[in-house]
Amino acid sequence: MTQPKNPPAKDIVRRIAPKFAQLGNEILYGDIWERPELSKRDRSLITCAALVALGRTEQMATHFPLAIENGVSQAEIVEMITHMAFYAGWPAASSAAVRASEIFGAELDD
Amino acid sequence: MTQPKNPPAKDIVRRIAPKFAQLGNEILYGDIWERPELSKRDRSLITCAALVALGRTEQMATHFPLAIENGVSQAEIVEMITHMAFYAGWPAASSAAVRASEIFGAELDD
Amino acid sequence: MTQPKNPPAKDIVRRIAPKFAQLGNEILYGDIWERPELSKRDRSLITCAALVALGRTEQMATHFPLAIENGVSQAEIVEMITHMAFYAGWPAASSAAVRASEIFGAELDD
Amino acid sequence: MTQPKNPPAKDIVRRIAPKFAQLGNEILYGDIWERPELSKRDRSLITCAALVALGRTEQMATHFPLAIENGVSQAEIVEMITHMAFYAGWPAASSAAVRASEIFGAELDD
Amino acid sequence: MTQPKNPPAKDIVRRIAPKFAQLGNEILYGDIWERPELSKRDRSLITCAALVALGRTEQMATHFPLAIENGVSQAEIVEMITHMAFYAGWPAASSAAVRASEIFGAELDD
Amino acid sequence: MTQPKNPPAKDIVRRIAPKFAQLGNEILYGDIWERPELSKRDRSLITCAALVALGRTEQMATHFPLAIENGVSQAEIVEMITHMAFYAGWPAASSAAVRASEIFGAELDD
Repeated sequence: MTQPKNPPAKDIVRRIAPKFAQLGNEILYGDIWERPELSKRDRSLITCAALVALGRTEQMATHFPLAIENGVSQAEIVEMITHMAFYAGWPAASSAAVRASEIFGAELDD
Repeated sequence: MTQPKNPPAKDIVRRIAPKFAQLGNEILYGDIWERPELSKRDRSLITCAALVALGRTEQMATHFPLAIENGVSQAEIVEMITHMAFYAGWPAASSAAVRASEIFGAELDD
Repeated sequence: MTQPKNPPAKDIVRRIAPKFAQLGNEILYGDIWERPELSKRDRSLITCAALVALGRTEQMATHFPLAIENGVSQAEIVEMITHMAFYAGWPAASSAAVRASEIFGAELDD
Repeated sequence: MTQPKNPPAKDIVRRIAPKFAQLGNEILYGDIWERPELSKRDRSLITCAALVALGRTEQMATHFPLAIENGVSQAEIVEMITHMAFYAGWPAASSAAVRASEIFGAELDD
Repeated sequence: MTQPKNPPAKDIVRRIAPKFAQLGNEILYGDIWERPELSKRDRSLITCAALVALGRTEQMATHFPLAIENGVSQAEIVEMITHMAFYAGWPAASSAAVRASEIFGAELDD
Repeated sequence: MTQPKNPPAKDIVRRIAPKFAQLGNEILYGDIWERPELSKRDRSLITCAALVALGRTEQMATHFPLAIENGVSQAEIVEMITHMAFYAGWPAASSAAVRASEIFGAELDD
């Protein structure tokens, strides 16, 4: 999962699609995520749920750790994935669980 | 949206697909939703987010009001929809907003 | 569901998009569905499963009855929907079950 | 399709989700759509293609006519739908063709 | 495709998400798949069709071989993929065909 | 991204699914893409937009370069991806931008 030779996705996007990256920084992260109408923990939960439901596995490496930072526990992410199995199907949840294991793996091995 | 002449979707499903309805009652609602690993408010938030992301507009009439019962405010549902616009696209969020207006409508008119 | 005033979807498509309709008749129905590599019952089962999984509820009015013609029973369609709940999620299966009830309804009421 | 008794979707969204509506006006329409990097005709084509591919039929009533305003012909919209049948599947294209017929109907009847 | 260094997805899921794995074993495989209302061959066909339609390529390594065990032939899986091209689009079918070649490859080379 | 040891996807599909490959050559490329009702540049734009919207990242290696051949510039592909962020969501656009960088990368580095 970690690819030390490659720049992170964020840097790749900024170089090839600067307007898209700028909108992400200024509008999505600078405005939406900062709005008090929903806590950052809530925003992380629904963002991760949407990634699971839509099968957007590539963004989990960014958003699962960000969810931890925002106060979601690893156990809650796993429970969210289990819950999502019923709303988006077993395959979507299964791929997300494998990705969660790759992302959190070391700590979960024991 | 309210169709007094027709039985609610839950009753229709129970009659035509009793095994599916039974699994919903016993496993999804009787087991998953009752697990303390994630609060009911959290479960409602991620369920509603998944419905928006996947464009499952028909289930919003059930889950938006259930979210209110579980402690999500109408303003938080609207903010969730706004947040989802960035993760599932404008059309998905727009259809959800129209549905939210139909469901919560009367109280929001003022 | 039945709208006697409107022409069926097939006729609407033929008038507005004749090339698309022609491809459907000649390639999809005239060639693919006629290939012996998969029975028509199998083709109906996988087509209906795909409609459920993708949430393409509008085409169920055509393909659920066609599946019956091709040897799938109503009970098998309902069981397919129940099975799909686990692979595409509860909301997709729930909408399909409601549609199945509308399509097969009269006979299932007793 | 036209529902004279109800306010248009745009107004509903503005009332229930003002922040979402504001982002649509200022960022999506006020900034993105105005960027010269892609013509408005191109933007309409890809927006309509995305609506077909994703099955977002509710937004077609807005974007199919907007595409006409932006220089796409009705015949080109129909051809786009036919092309999309191969990239998003027959059911997605079929629902879009029915919607196109409802939207452009009167003029296409002859 | 075969990654001898990594544990199989099933083991990963069981370790990180034991409740999800348990539901899979007891409800999905232990109950649903065993129901006589639909044969295992039928269940494999519709499961594989759903994986193709939804683009869930990661689960094909499990379900394509399971379909063979359940009486679906390799030729029928390929025909199902070809059929799905028309219902879920060329790209979904194309990715599935590449995966099928990886999974069945050695035997198909001659 | 380039895998010199493996045959290209087109060859894999032709060998495992010859009927599917034949339909692609004769109907999709031989008939649809050649129809004058929509220019090849337009067809490339909408095809690439559909790939982004549906998250079909594997086909981008074929269709992004084909779009260049058909008169779409790299800057227009990037702008299309940015536009799609609003219609299919940030994650879909982000994965597409990373893929575009891999495909066009060398030339974009300066």
